[in-house]
Amino acid sequence: MADAALNALIEALRRLPGVGVKSASRMAFHLLQHDREGAQQLAQSLMQATARIRHCRLCHTFTEDEVCSTCSDPQRDASKLAVVETPADQAALERTNAYRGRYFVLMGKLSPLDGIGPRDIGLAKLFERATDGVVQEVILATNFTAEGEATAHVIGEALKQRGLQVTRLARGVPAGSELEYVDLGTIAHALVDRR
Amino acid sequence: MADAALNALIEALRRLPGVGVKSASRMAFHLLQHDREGAQQLAQSLMQATARIRHCRLCHTFTEDEVCSTCSDPQRDASKLAVVETPADQAALERTNAYRGRYFVLMGKLSPLDGIGPRDIGLAKLFERATDGVVQEVILATNFTAEGEATAHVIGEALKQRGLQVTRLARGVPAGSELEYVDLGTIAHALVDRR
Ligand SMILES: [Zn+2]
Ligand SMILES: [Zn+2]
Repeated sequence: MADAALNALIEALRRLPGVGVKSASRMAFHLLQHDREGAQQLAQSLMQATARIRHCRLCHTFTEDEVCSTCSDPQRDASKLAVVETPADQAALERTNAYRGRYFVLMGKLSPLDGIGPRDIGLAKLFERATDGVVQEVILATNFTAEGEATAHVIGEALKQRGLQVTRLARGVPAGSELEYVDLGTIAHALVDRR
Repeated sequence: MADAALNALIEALRRLPGVGVKSASRMAFHLLQHDREGAQQLAQSLMQATARIRHCRLCHTFTEDEVCSTCSDPQRDASKLAVVETPADQAALERTNAYRGRYFVLMGKLSPLDGIGPRDIGLAKLFERATDGVVQEVILATNFTAEGEATAHVIGEALKQRGLQVTRLARGVPAGSELEYVDLGTIAHALVDRR
């Protein structure tokens, strides 16, 4: 009943974030009973992704090339550099079609409690990139969480010392919302950041 | 930015039960950024599990051999056959140390709405096994859900027609609980199944 291959699969699935032993067992059962083709496809894409995907030399995001497509796009304004936490955040900014500059993707955020320091999010590389003489403005687009704000603060202070123009995404009232239903903190921020 | 290998990995992860596009992206990010060794281990265990794991010829559960360890254990009482839905349910019964008979694992349950009929849960094989002349009693240990009860009913009726003794796990008040805090349906069942 306790088969080695089955137990190994359940253990491996448990390494996925948010997957406990119950979910892992349910996933293993589903794959083996109903979707062996899916299991093989997952195995293959894991192998290909780990073999092919590395970090862009310039912006740190995932790419299969030395430099990612965003960084190698000559149409982009190289004088602007947006700093985001993850590729998902970068994708969110891209969807707005409101930004045509370049990016630096931290692939994380400063999080002293989790032992994630400046080195883990490539700050030395970011500072090098930001001071290449081409970048004029660094836009801090980390999340508006405690850790995202702290990360933005640390980066902002360091870059200002290096004489760069540093801006932060505006906090404010979401478009289309009625003030009556917006939380007080957001309204307070919108007052502070008024233009 | 839209890398083929990354998108393929996210798509493959979405085939896991309970995993949407957001979780799949989070899993892919975690594996590629923090746990490439885990990704390779998962790939390997998926390949090994799909290559090695098949169904026990006698009880239908997952096994790497032709007959699983429970079915080939000579210490087990071959006159009793417990019918369970999944290997996890079988494991739960085993943990009680209260049952030393054999098993038939349906690897599912009757679920007409999902298109799961008698053939999908191997009922023909179960009937053949139950009428081998050795089995004296079939214990229906499917779950006490609507689908589990319906599955038990269908199997029970068919086996009684074949002249077998058929029993069902007792419904009742969980051990150690105070009646005051037990739901009414459970108390009602305990009354009906009183001995
Ligand atoms: Zn790049
Ligand atoms: Zn077996």
